[in-house]
Amino acid sequence: MHDTLALLRVSYHSARALSSRRIVFPLFSLSRFSPPILDKARARCYHTSHQGKGVLTDSLALLFGGDPMLTPNLSYANLKESYLFRRIAQKTEAYLAAHPGTHLYRMGIGDVSLPLVPAVIEALHRAVEDQSRQSSFHGYMPECGAPFLREAVAEHYRRRGVMLAADEVFVSSGASDELGDLLDLFDRKNRALIMEPAYPAYVDANIMAGREIIHLSSGPDNHFLPLPNETTDADLVYLCSPNNPTGAAYDREQLTRWVQWANEHQALILFDAAYEAFIEEDLPHSIFEIPGASTCAIEICSLSKTAGFTGTRLGYTVISKDLERCGLSLNAMWVRNRTTKTNGISYILQRGGAAVFTEEGQRQVHDNIRVYKENARVLMKALDEAGIRYWGGRNAPYIWMQCPDGMGSWAFFDRLLNEIQVVGTPGEGFGACGVDFFRFSTFGDPADTREAAGRLKSLLKKTE
Amino acid sequence: MHDTLALLRVSYHSARALSSRRIVFPLFSLSRFSPPILDKARARCYHTSHQGKGVLTDSLALLFGGDPMLTPNLSYANLKESYLFRRIAQKTEAYLAAHPGTHLYRMGIGDVSLPLVPAVIEALHRAVEDQSRQSSFHGYMPECGAPFLREAVAEHYRRRGVMLAADEVFVSSGASDELGDLLDLFDRKNRALIMEPAYPAYVDANIMAGREIIHLSSGPDNHFLPLPNETTDADLVYLCSPNNPTGAAYDREQLTRWVQWANEHQALILFDAAYEAFIEEDLPHSIFEIPGASTCAIEICSLSKTAGFTGTRLGYTVISKDLERCGLSLNAMWVRNRTTKTNGISYILQRGGAAVFTEEGQRQVHDNIRVYKENARVLMKALDEAGIRYWGGRNAPYIWMQCPDGMGSWAFFDRLLNEIQVVGTPGEGFGACGVDFFRFSTFGDPADTREAAGRLKSLLKKTE
Repeated sequence: MHDTLALLRVSYHSARALSSRRIVFPLFSLSRFSPPILDKARARCYHTSHQGKGVLTDSLALLFGGDPMLTPNLSYANLKESYLFRRIAQKTEAYLAAHPGTHLYRMGIGDVSLPLVPAVIEALHRAVEDQSRQSSFHGYMPECGAPFLREAVAEHYRRRGVMLAADEVFVSSGASDELGDLLDLFDRKNRALIMEPAYPAYVDANIMAGREIIHLSSGPDNHFLPLPNETTDADLVYLCSPNNPTGAAYDREQLTRWVQWANEHQALILFDAAYEAFIEEDLPHSIFEIPGASTCAIEICSLSKTAGFTGTRLGYTVISKDLERCGLSLNAMWVRNRTTKTNGISYILQRGGAAVFTEEGQRQVHDNIRVYKENARVLMKALDEAGIRYWGGRNAPYIWMQCPDGMGSWAFFDRLLNEIQVVGTPGEGFGACGVDFFRFSTFGDPADTREAAGRLKSLLKKTE
Repeated sequence: MHDTLALLRVSYHSARALSSRRIVFPLFSLSRFSPPILDKARARCYHTSHQGKGVLTDSLALLFGGDPMLTPNLSYANLKESYLFRRIAQKTEAYLAAHPGTHLYRMGIGDVSLPLVPAVIEALHRAVEDQSRQSSFHGYMPECGAPFLREAVAEHYRRRGVMLAADEVFVSSGASDELGDLLDLFDRKNRALIMEPAYPAYVDANIMAGREIIHLSSGPDNHFLPLPNETTDADLVYLCSPNNPTGAAYDREQLTRWVQWANEHQALILFDAAYEAFIEEDLPHSIFEIPGASTCAIEICSLSKTAGFTGTRLGYTVISKDLERCGLSLNAMWVRNRTTKTNGISYILQRGGAAVFTEEGQRQVHDNIRVYKENARVLMKALDEAGIRYWGGRNAPYIWMQCPDGMGSWAFFDRLLNEIQVVGTPGEGFGACGVDFFRFSTFGDPADTREAAGRLKSLLKKTE
């Protein structure tokens, strides 16, 4: 038993010395050991691998490959525990337990508060009725999306000057689902560059795939809008604009630099446009407004924030037929993925989604967006009056403020909760470079937002 | 240019000679070549790789790894074109073009024809109403499923004697989606054993992941119910019972053999139970009815056929908290996957799904299933009277018949279409061992099914 472990350890260290990227163990036979010993060796080996930061994971399957034994995706062992929202919930619950009946002003999680608009509700009811009668019943839907919705989205882009064919639009269950699924199109050896602070799932989904991650920090110096330079070196690039959590949004010139860089280096941009409907200045809503983007970018969009679909689920993805790498069309690959791994998106939800793109639907969802924008205005005014530096709010539903007095983001969280009963999101949860910042969501109740803004201003002025 | 290609070719052949499993190229520098030449070399290399049956794909990223350049998942190049349903559609359209106005009896694709039952329709309407009002509006749902639905499914299992906790049930968008997504939990070096004939997506999803596939053929000798023996050697095993396409269903003793084999070998069974609601004999509906299954199986189920949700989309997956491999809990891994890669399933659809598990819902969906079972009875009677051997029909919505006169399945397809205007599915589409067989779906219109059965009987009797 101990010999086995020692052997594993020695092999591990000598192999590591030879290569930091991929280690192949000498295939010594383990079959002479009894199953319980093998199990322990495996557990230990897994432990070593975990501490070895994942470099060993590829080798385990080879090591034990002779035996039929399922190996889980050991990259999952490299994930860090996701504490952010759980820790917020724990702290909030503890406060409420100590102060029963207190009203909290919740401006943390980016969930919407307004119900679905009437045009969508009506379309959903009609679609449910369709499913109740044999004559109008819909069974399996086309895997890449119903033609009526693909065309409605393409037309929505065309109205903004982006020429798309309907079969370049793929209907999805939402941006989160799609950002997870799309990674199947890329080799695991690609290196993923993630602009940070970032939505934590970008990082975790790539850790699950065993990809090397390059963190591209941003901060006040570059207005949270990092750009590529001569040393930028990555295969897959995550850009989110308008950004979650910072609310910063790229302009045309800045996005053009990314598109040019990606085309030059044959890299690929995953462009998360989930917040585009909140843009009010003259900024690109879609990366496809930038010449050259069709050969280097995939755009992921969602109705979650645009039309309050967070709990209803619907989104869309644009992959141009011009996008190729190594002679493979990414559009054709995604068709193949969807036809193999899904049976399409619910007919009922697609009818609801299509209503968003009608004239009436657009008017109604923009009425809702105006409510959230008024929340943003109220909060920005409070921060302005308190002399606090912040980003976002104007073209995004998030406000990203600098914590006062060099306070860390968790300390500021505690202070807001304890002193003014306001709950926000500590910037540290979005990556190390967020440690001095704090995120407010503007999706909350307007009366709560006004009260929270007033309390925030008083607190911050007191701090001065 | 030609030197580069020659060098690639020589390296490829010499590397292949050394190992059939994994090839690492000598890392000669390609940086002295200009980009267009590199592009051509890549294209050629991709071609070679394709013909080399995928063994080269892993090496490409290493070969070009120095350059920032996105490498797509080259395993997609190893997929065969999926001709089955497209070829059926082409032949059918051609027939209709030549015989305008002809009524075709469609008994091919396994899509349901009856609308959603009243209990589900009512629940869907109520849920849409909930989304129309701020007081009852639901935003983000818990990623693993709404507690009300997880509990309803767990209770459904408990009524059949399978003790499950609600957090061992995961709500999904359906079995297809889940069978694709679940593969992320497993290392790519696992070998997947697929009982055939099979649902083509089992094979394709594993090709996409670059997994070695072991085809376990079945036939009349084992009643299309293959069992493990002393030579069975695989990590991941796909079982579908009642089976699509053969309609064969494992009994307790047979499933016990699979469970024992999997536990002994630490393999993992993916058990597709999508057709369990059609079982009428005393056979297991769930693999968890077999002692020991909780430590070696994941069950994937769907409301598509049970309750006509093919176009509405909803399913569920059961992963026991007892299921571990290499010290990792598969249940915990799937929680982590869902919380990273999804934002949950639509509130509206989950309410509709929960209605299926009420007393009223169960009664109504079984009324629909009885309609399909009557279709099966009509078809089986016709085949009995024509003296044709077939499987399924009794515990499954599919009937799998032996083609008459040693006719191949595509020839039989043509004959049915041309002579009696009946459309079915050639067995060859489900794997090579299906070449002598033909699948009928019993989900069609009852009047059409009766007419088709009569025509089929006459044709087959004529053949005698």
